[in-house]
Amino acid sequence: MRLMHRIVVDAMGGDHAPDEIVQGAAEASLALTSAEIILVGDAAVLGRLLPKLRHDGARVRVHHAPTYVEMDEKPAEALAAKPEASIAVAADLVARGEGDALVSAGNTGASVLACARRWTLLEGVRRAALAAVFPTELRRGEKDDPFSLILDVGATVDVTAEDLVGFAVMGSAYAKLVSSNRRPRVALLSNGTEANKGPKEIVGAHAALVETTELNFIGNIEGLDIPRGVADVVVTSGFVGNVVLKMLEGVSDTVVRLARYAHKERLAWRLGLIALSSAIDQLKSITDWQQYGGAPLLGFTHPFIKAHGRSNARAVTNAIKVAHKALAGNLCGNIARTMAELDERAQKKPRATTGSDPGS
Amino acid sequence: MRLMHRIVVDAMGGDHAPDEIVQGAAEASLALTSAEIILVGDAAVLGRLLPKLRHDGARVRVHHAPTYVEMDEKPAEALAAKPEASIAVAADLVARGEGDALVSAGNTGASVLACARRWTLLEGVRRAALAAVFPTELRRGEKDDPFSLILDVGATVDVTAEDLVGFAVMGSAYAKLVSSNRRPRVALLSNGTEANKGPKEIVGAHAALVETTELNFIGNIEGLDIPRGVADVVVTSGFVGNVVLKMLEGVSDTVVRLARYAHKERLAWRLGLIALSSAIDQLKSITDWQQYGGAPLLGFTHPFIKAHGRSNARAVTNAIKVAHKALAGNLCGNIARTMAELDERAQKKPRATTGSDPGS
Repeated sequence: MRLMHRIVVDAMGGDHAPDEIVQGAAEASLALTSAEIILVGDAAVLGRLLPKLRHDGARVRVHHAPTYVEMDEKPAEALAAKPEASIAVAADLVARGEGDALVSAGNTGASVLACARRWTLLEGVRRAALAAVFPTELRRGEKDDPFSLILDVGATVDVTAEDLVGFAVMGSAYAKLVSSNRRPRVALLSNGTEANKGPKEIVGAHAALVETTELNFIGNIEGLDIPRGVADVVVTSGFVGNVVLKMLEGVSDTVVRLARYAHKERLAWRLGLIALSSAIDQLKSITDWQQYGGAPLLGFTHPFIKAHGRSNARAVTNAIKVAHKALAGNLCGNIARTMAELDERAQKKPRATTGSDPGS
Repeated sequence: MRLMHRIVVDAMGGDHAPDEIVQGAAEASLALTSAEIILVGDAAVLGRLLPKLRHDGARVRVHHAPTYVEMDEKPAEALAAKPEASIAVAADLVARGEGDALVSAGNTGASVLACARRWTLLEGVRRAALAAVFPTELRRGEKDDPFSLILDVGATVDVTAEDLVGFAVMGSAYAKLVSSNRRPRVALLSNGTEANKGPKEIVGAHAALVETTELNFIGNIEGLDIPRGVADVVVTSGFVGNVVLKMLEGVSDTVVRLARYAHKERLAWRLGLIALSSAIDQLKSITDWQQYGGAPLLGFTHPFIKAHGRSNARAVTNAIKVAHKALAGNLCGNIARTMAELDERAQKKPRATTGSDPGS
């Protein structure tokens, strides 16, 4: 008998829910032979959609939830008003041990809040982090992965040095597993590369991270290094990560606007742009980080993969595959193990040198 | 008799110092008839350079400083080791009332530190801020200014709500004067547009700024809005501003890299790129914010315009012109006046409603 990973999917969350979510889940059921997919949402609606799609009936089932959170609702208010919303029911299933991982393309704030209220933090983890993937240099192919991970991007707005160390551990574990990167380069985002640069939480995290052997800590990086892809895992507070991520999102628009500007200037440029228009469309899609992978919520005993609100069926299938990979590779166990190793090291250290609070 | 504005220029600071600095100053002496330029640096070197250049001898003079801070030196250590470095002597001249404004293309940290140690903060200003100009939408022409201002970008790493309110006042005053923008749109950078989003200092500054009538406060903006140019003045901590600014700097590289990627893909794209190559060069220069204006250090009783380290003569002339504009338009006086108005309003407010510390 083979081990089945039970992946709970919020079928009602996302701009194209439930149709594209159900279709993505149906496709995932055919692609993943060791996963069971539990679609949470209006049973009548899902029961009509599913039979129309090619899927493996033994590995997809529906769990009823009478209502759902809209994309633009305020998270706390929506969850209070709708205790049986699909995302709440889905997070509950996982919390009760009836599912192993969660996938949703719905309201980000509401899904993070639903997990935060029901799920348990891993031993040694103090604060959860939402990570996001973004495109860097445009290398491609099997070995040249053109993406980096940044965390936190909004789960923990204010952070301590210890929180940042935890984020480094979690981001590294995720990159190792999902990007098949054996020794991801982990960096702290700061306003200078020197160890003493930045607010005190950055300086403290730096001091703790340079002592680790479990992580490939390359030091501080600056804003300039983000699009360059100097680091595989960029560690920062939820506040700064959110600002940075939304700026990266703006880069694709900027590229298009730059092109439009050039358009007005010269005939040669205009001709060049016509030839390039399909390239520009493709560049735009490359810089649209949101279509890739989804954003993992890390730090809990179960993984949650937040697919983008605009996700189509393919993006949903991808997010389910990532959740499956996280379960199969024991992501959460790896994070807990590394946190324990760091904790052990901190406790072994002579008291005299721990005055600067190096993440112990 | 006309009022002369005395602008002190660190002739030894910058990648192309002293040649390009002296040339920029020489050109400024011809362009600005109500400015006197004091070049600070090695008198022997400057005395050889100046006579070779067209300049107005009545409006440029040399003040000797025997040494200077290198571009890559550590600011505090360099200033301690070289008390007579050109930037220290230049900041001293202004502090002693022998100059009205300072311009330098040298080591940013050392110049900000030299001013901070010698200069006096304006009445009502608690922390100084370094502001920078960055390109946004690519509109051009007399009315469509394609630049926004962001501050602080590194002078004050950790900020309070009151510091942010001060930055808003200073940025608005600068944009009003230098960009001839009557009512600059001022925004706080946050992780959401709602008034309660962000760390506590952002929430506190928001609460204070919505009450102002002196400023055109448009609320919180997100990272996405920065390249779009939604705000004329973006207010943030020195830490976040530094990260953001360096990311913007990276955008030009990203554009070029995107283009290179497209290059490999298809013949039509390749041909398009050849036609576009001059456009791409121009786009690169447009997104290179550093060639424009320089970064003003705001909050002191005198203006300091920090030109980029790579400044050529034209950029130095521009920075001197901006310093002249700041003096002629009474930038520092305007900032002090608005700070006093805000302070007066805060004191008039009934005690009961000032519990949330609205920048009083």
